[in-house]
Amino acid sequence: MAKNITNPEKDYAKWYQDVIREAELADSAPVRGCMVIRPYGYSIWENIQASLDASFKKTGHKNAYFPLFIPESFIKREAEHVEGFAPELAIVTQAGGKKLEEPLVVRPTSETIINHMFSKWINSYRDLPMLLNQWANVVRWEMRPRAFLRTTEFLWQEGHTAHADEKDAREETLRMLNVYTDFARNVAAIPVIPGRKTEREKFAGAVDSYTIEAMMGNGWALQSGTSHYLGTNFARVFETMYLDSNNEQQFVHQTSWGVSTRLVGAVIMAHGDENGLRLPPKLAPVQVVIVPIARDDSARAEVMAVVERISDVLEKEGVRVEVDNREGMSPGFKFNYWEVRGVPLRLEIGPRDLKEGHVMASQRNRPGRDSKFTISLDSIVDSIPGILERIQSEMLEEAIQKRNSRTYTVENLDDFREAIVSKPGFYDVWWDGSTEDETRLQQETKATVRCIPLEQREGTGKCFMTGRETNTRVIIARAY
Amino acid sequence: MAKNITNPEKDYAKWYQDVIREAELADSAPVRGCMVIRPYGYSIWENIQASLDASFKKTGHKNAYFPLFIPESFIKREAEHVEGFAPELAIVTQAGGKKLEEPLVVRPTSETIINHMFSKWINSYRDLPMLLNQWANVVRWEMRPRAFLRTTEFLWQEGHTAHADEKDAREETLRMLNVYTDFARNVAAIPVIPGRKTEREKFAGAVDSYTIEAMMGNGWALQSGTSHYLGTNFARVFETMYLDSNNEQQFVHQTSWGVSTRLVGAVIMAHGDENGLRLPPKLAPVQVVIVPIARDDSARAEVMAVVERISDVLEKEGVRVEVDNREGMSPGFKFNYWEVRGVPLRLEIGPRDLKEGHVMASQRNRPGRDSKFTISLDSIVDSIPGILERIQSEMLEEAIQKRNSRTYTVENLDDFREAIVSKPGFYDVWWDGSTEDETRLQQETKATVRCIPLEQREGTGKCFMTGRETNTRVIIARAY
Repeated sequence: MAKNITNPEKDYAKWYQDVIREAELADSAPVRGCMVIRPYGYSIWENIQASLDASFKKTGHKNAYFPLFIPESFIKREAEHVEGFAPELAIVTQAGGKKLEEPLVVRPTSETIINHMFSKWINSYRDLPMLLNQWANVVRWEMRPRAFLRTTEFLWQEGHTAHADEKDAREETLRMLNVYTDFARNVAAIPVIPGRKTEREKFAGAVDSYTIEAMMGNGWALQSGTSHYLGTNFARVFETMYLDSNNEQQFVHQTSWGVSTRLVGAVIMAHGDENGLRLPPKLAPVQVVIVPIARDDSARAEVMAVVERISDVLEKEGVRVEVDNREGMSPGFKFNYWEVRGVPLRLEIGPRDLKEGHVMASQRNRPGRDSKFTISLDSIVDSIPGILERIQSEMLEEAIQKRNSRTYTVENLDDFREAIVSKPGFYDVWWDGSTEDETRLQQETKATVRCIPLEQREGTGKCFMTGRETNTRVIIARAY
Repeated sequence: MAKNITNPEKDYAKWYQDVIREAELADSAPVRGCMVIRPYGYSIWENIQASLDASFKKTGHKNAYFPLFIPESFIKREAEHVEGFAPELAIVTQAGGKKLEEPLVVRPTSETIINHMFSKWINSYRDLPMLLNQWANVVRWEMRPRAFLRTTEFLWQEGHTAHADEKDAREETLRMLNVYTDFARNVAAIPVIPGRKTEREKFAGAVDSYTIEAMMGNGWALQSGTSHYLGTNFARVFETMYLDSNNEQQFVHQTSWGVSTRLVGAVIMAHGDENGLRLPPKLAPVQVVIVPIARDDSARAEVMAVVERISDVLEKEGVRVEVDNREGMSPGFKFNYWEVRGVPLRLEIGPRDLKEGHVMASQRNRPGRDSKFTISLDSIVDSIPGILERIQSEMLEEAIQKRNSRTYTVENLDDFREAIVSKPGFYDVWWDGSTEDETRLQQETKATVRCIPLEQREGTGKCFMTGRETNTRVIIARAY
């Protein structure tokens, strides 16, 4: 067990804070609810950005940048939208030494200002679809902040698109949900469940909201990305219209979709263990750390020559490698340092290894003895990419196993009340409840309907709350 | 002359606005002084970011993220700093439905909050140097906004570093100035003049400020990047200290340095002409545009097969290529469309070209007939990278010529008064003036001392304002 890290079985919330502190991912800021993202944590976010940004561009989206400040009157135009966001707004009332005539809202999301611009830019069906994205900071005043998961200011991307009709917009909504699902699974090694939100849980202003729900190490759910079909709700209030091919004015159909720095929290909690972080190679700031081991200067020179050759070649191959040749620190200290930081692969190279023609390797994702193996010096550079791929797929496999082993079902509310406490996890149940039923469920059990999975099973059954026959299954869980 | 673009000789300010609108670089936002960066403009900024970010990392810096909101009391701690920024601050007074106890400043720059964090993170000389950067938005309330050049909110990077002593910090200050100079010259093709700011022009809170000054198409100067040696000014008020190797507490010496979306304005004005933008290939969102030319369907099929093959291979080679096969638009319309957008190289391919085994090429940076040449179809893919390099170096060469031809000298203030009006440009003059002399110079001529160039000539001469003998030369110009 790592020093300074609480056992996650004992106190998961404390474990989470400990990992963030010990791995130097983030720190709290002087303003309540805000955080500072430290270089190691930010580097994970940069890798998330690079992967998603490439996917957005591949699906035809372009980046743009819209202003931080939104006139208060804009936010108020869409009724559900303002109701949803009003309690969380931060408002600028003074600027340039004067009181402002109209207060400015610090953007909580950009649907309103983007519709204002779309209504200028979109004239004809030839201008559609308009497929934009922005990487930005947003502010939602947070009463119960938690690093990465809920912070007053956070970093995210928000896609905003306008389409000629509902069909095209709904396809886009699911296309981007799919981009998120793929990313979570194949890059972050998190087997999320894509699904639709219930009426109660959907975005303020959307017709339909979709989500990817990830399971954290304590069995709770984390909403890790959302994609919304907005219909013509914003288009109507901002008059975002186009001339169709029959020369008639039509409202555009819109989507918006986003993921945030919350994903860093998802990675910590989906993979971390009692020794700290465990990072999937595709997101790890350092994929391979090499710790040279030498007792005296002549051994050091001999070892370092080999270490540098290996690290140079790996770097040229695009592997993110770091050599830890800090002086005055024991190998044990260094092993722990990189273990807490979740580096997927550690290599140790000493004079004896050189003589025997191999290096000692340790795979962060495997426990205890299973983590150790040797790699022949002759083939080391060729074998590393394959080992990183193996770690990546082992981590996904483990996460799938964990999720499956903590996915349960129940037949009625009484059973659920007890089960969600004794066996926290995903409850895959028949559901035909109303918004009121959902509210009661949350009040009585603290659990919520996370999503109506896109993949539904055949047949019907009795809703576990109302007893009514239904063909719909949902995932219910405690959530962050 | 392009439609809808004012002749820059007639009205340079109007020309600038016209180019931004016609090339779809930016649009004004509903909040005064703010702008929307449209996809084409944002893509130039992404290329600027990618190039600089790689240079920052190569010089040992790591990215991090600090909060948007700074407690008002922080800004007030450093006396010169608050005096410099107070008139430009935007202030959040309400959040989460309540009046805040302490108002929050929307960051105009992050020295104060970063020092607050540095004082937690830095303990010993082993923690130094600390070399951080952040890409972020900042807000400075702007009374006379101009797209990209002066906007209330802008995007930038701000580097912040802490060092054990003055020597190390001063080296860093100049190292980063040098990174900016190299970028401007070799990527943006703008031959900036690196130099030191006078006392009057330096950053609020710095000991010494350095700048790169670029010449715009109208002979005015644009401060395009700055690098500051902050001494211990912020360290003293935030108690950012470390234990040196003798176990004594010392203040850290600091630097900060930044460039912003203003660089997009620099690119527009350094290279643009009466037909719109001209982009250096290294920053161009589209480096090569291919316009297929075909009158009928069979010709179109034949042409498109070749066009797609060329574009696929170029893309694989890392060339940013776009095929404009939009229907219902004439070749002339398309030529103009891409010309306004400054695409460095245009290829036209029609059935006759295929028969003759070549394509028609046009280099955006050259005027009229000199822009046209043919490329053999056999060697086209191999020759494009070389042509783009040629365009890049021709653009730098042209910018150097222009700058040199508009760099003058004068012997006294009376001559200058007339010269700066009849021949706007850089005035390279002997200087021994005081801050009061600078103020008078600006009041009488609207020109300012842009910098004391790092490269000084031998010898001495008489200050053009005071007549005193001096060994210092400065650049004086009208500036944005």
